[in-house]
Amino acid sequence: MSEIKNIVTDLCIIGAGPVGLFAVFEAGLLKMRCHLVDVLPQVGGQLSEIYPQKPIYDIPGFPEIKAQVLIDNLMEQIKPFNPGFSLGERVEQLIKNDDETFNVKTSDGTIINCKTVVIAGGLGCFEPRKPDIENLLNFEGKGVNYMVKDPEFYRGKKVILAGGGDSALDWTIYLANIAKEVTLVHRGDTFRGAPDSAEKVFNLAEAGKINLILSSHLVKIEGSELLEKVYLIDKNKQEHVLLADNLIPLFGLSPKLGPIADWDLSINKSAIEVNTEDYSTNIKGIYAIGDINTYKGKLKLILSGFHEAALMAQSAFKFVYPDAKLSFKYTTVYGVNSF
Amino acid sequence: MSEIKNIVTDLCIIGAGPVGLFAVFEAGLLKMRCHLVDVLPQVGGQLSEIYPQKPIYDIPGFPEIKAQVLIDNLMEQIKPFNPGFSLGERVEQLIKNDDETFNVKTSDGTIINCKTVVIAGGLGCFEPRKPDIENLLNFEGKGVNYMVKDPEFYRGKKVILAGGGDSALDWTIYLANIAKEVTLVHRGDTFRGAPDSAEKVFNLAEAGKINLILSSHLVKIEGSELLEKVYLIDKNKQEHVLLADNLIPLFGLSPKLGPIADWDLSINKSAIEVNTEDYSTNIKGIYAIGDINTYKGKLKLILSGFHEAALMAQSAFKFVYPDAKLSFKYTTVYGVNSF
Ligand SMILES: Cc1cc2nc3c(=O)[nH]c(=O)nc-3n(C[C@H](O)[C@H](O)[C@H](O)COP(=O)(O)OP(=O)(O)OC[C@H]3O[C@@H](n4cnc5c(N)ncnc54)[C@H](O)[C@@H]3O)c2cc1C
Ligand SMILES: Cc1cc2nc3c(=O)[nH]c(=O)nc-3n(C[C@H](O)[C@H](O)[C@H](O)COP(=O)(O)OP(=O)(O)OC[C@H]3O[C@@H](n4cnc5c(N)ncnc54)[C@H](O)[C@@H]3O)c2cc1C
Repeated sequence: MSEIKNIVTDLCIIGAGPVGLFAVFEAGLLKMRCHLVDVLPQVGGQLSEIYPQKPIYDIPGFPEIKAQVLIDNLMEQIKPFNPGFSLGERVEQLIKNDDETFNVKTSDGTIINCKTVVIAGGLGCFEPRKPDIENLLNFEGKGVNYMVKDPEFYRGKKVILAGGGDSALDWTIYLANIAKEVTLVHRGDTFRGAPDSAEKVFNLAEAGKINLILSSHLVKIEGSELLEKVYLIDKNKQEHVLLADNLIPLFGLSPKLGPIADWDLSINKSAIEVNTEDYSTNIKGIYAIGDINTYKGKLKLILSGFHEAALMAQSAFKFVYPDAKLSFKYTTVYGVNSF
Repeated sequence: MSEIKNIVTDLCIIGAGPVGLFAVFEAGLLKMRCHLVDVLPQVGGQLSEIYPQKPIYDIPGFPEIKAQVLIDNLMEQIKPFNPGFSLGERVEQLIKNDDETFNVKTSDGTIINCKTVVIAGGLGCFEPRKPDIENLLNFEGKGVNYMVKDPEFYRGKKVILAGGGDSALDWTIYLANIAKEVTLVHRGDTFRGAPDSAEKVFNLAEAGKINLILSSHLVKIEGSELLEKVYLIDKNKQEHVLLADNLIPLFGLSPKLGPIADWDLSINKSAIEVNTEDYSTNIKGIYAIGDINTYKGKLKLILSGFHEAALMAQSAFKFVYPDAKLSFKYTTVYGVNSF
């Protein structure tokens, strides 16, 4: 059990995709502090999770930029404002306090007390696709994890990974040097992931560094308290049993609006309706920017989220500094003053 | 008299500032051709004219970028769509044709026939500040010019420049190698422009390559048909007369809404009111994006103009391709197809 964290900030930003990240910059220009929460273990949202190496052509000023490079640049751009991050945590609950501030609660029990909530949740919380394996849900957190948050956690353990995409390949390669024993189980006999990663995995298997079980699928898991046994069926319909401390099914992530859907926000087709004047929602003090919002003419484009972040920040300012007068300044003239 | 040009295009974009330029990209993605008009001899609007060497900090993805570099990048980004340019021409007149297209007419008589007009005119038409010199207006175009469109025009001529800022210094240095004789007249005895440019001008004067007349101001000009004589008064109140083929007063540019103000657009404090759904104006087929528009929450930021350009393009599509269905595509997935 990790220690429960209490964080106090001006803006709690739900979602550390490109739009949540840039919101830190626009807020920072107005001297507002930010804390970001993302269920994924890394920042960057869809760009880092789905297409990090693909080029984007419609970011103004970049004839071409790789998705991950854009995220790296944004991280560099917001550095002067030193935001906080709770990664690998899912926002679960929102409470409005008597003093008009909010408490945002995460799956790890972190509580973020803030003056304004900015939902930059994109297509929603990336949730792991869970394969149909008997007993799987009973062992979540007791040996079963759908994401690798901290590879060191697996040091000295017997680990089974399942899947055929990049995540399964990459983590197999990575954990081969850390875990006591690594087994990769895959339904097919070729991989969807990058060819050179697949080659590495085949080489590791040949060298006896990992076990590679192809054309097989998991059917059942067992254990007394913690996970102990994993059952699989091979292409000849033969059942096998493997001993394991950990099972990591990596069958991709699919986004879901999740708990945000229950916050009494005005929702239209899984998106949050906003006022385009400042991208505020129907609840005072809560904004929604980027892919997660909707309004007449909305385009799910990164550049639109950037604009929305700028207008949001101007409006959020009145919650953070109710008595201050906001004056509009150009960065060229006034620079970026860190804090 | 230059030949009158007739241009046919999909979108006529008035103003080649950052927002007008990026509009070419967003239009191009939807296979719409663009022609840009700007009264300035170069593209880039305020960025190239007012602060080309200053860093901007709030362009998403660039922790810092010099204004002129952003413009150069945008020019690179729109290259695949091969836009047309009429630079150094002021848009004067707008006519709606019977077939629902528009004719846009410039100060040089160029006529651009287009399906949609996009006003990206920023703070307005940059108009030269005209000093108070007797007879000045009578010699406009007959020896008097307020901008250097083509330096070659001055080859072999006797040229007098007036002013104390960067333009006056830069053009003095540049024309020293082209004109037969260059004289710079300045009211003060120090320059507002970049110190190293000022030093170059002093060196050229010392080397006898140009005439430098300080602490003096122009009072009158004369000529029969074309400019012949320029009168000035020195700090001792003595009048002098200089022979000259050309006079270039460079006292800065100040933006004016100009003829656009007379087009029956809904105007609020020198800005054009738009619908934020698609940044359309009150006249069907005419859009306004960037600094020149206004709506509730409007921020005069470059990044807002970029977003506005994207939404405008989606809407303009129906004027250009009335029967086509628009489908929304990511550049990452579909690329940028030039034409
Ligand atoms: C293949 C592909 C190609 C694309 N190409 C382009 C392109 O060329 N140009 C373009 O402009 N756009 C493109 N897009 C769209 C672009 O990726 C999105 O517009 C952009 O990612 C939106 O950014 P965002 O920050 O709003 O949301 P996201 O990037 O979706 O980030 C939202 C984050 O919020 C987190 N989150 C949500 N709910 C919670 C919760 N309850 N608790 C904790 N965390 C939560 C998610 O885990 C996620 O990391 C493309 C998308 C895809 C999939
Ligand atoms: C010193 C300074 C610092 C700034 N710093 C920042 C910053 O840090 N961040 C930021 O986001 N913004 C900044 N800005 C504002 C930014 O420059 C503007 O938001 C931006 O230039 C707007 O772009 P635009 O394309 O809409 O208009 P403009 O850049 O103004 O371009 C409009 C063009 O239209 C032309 N035009 C107008 N009318 C006509 C006509 N009738 N015929 C022909 N041509 C016409 C003009 O000549 C001009 O070239 C700054 C501005 C200044 C002055």
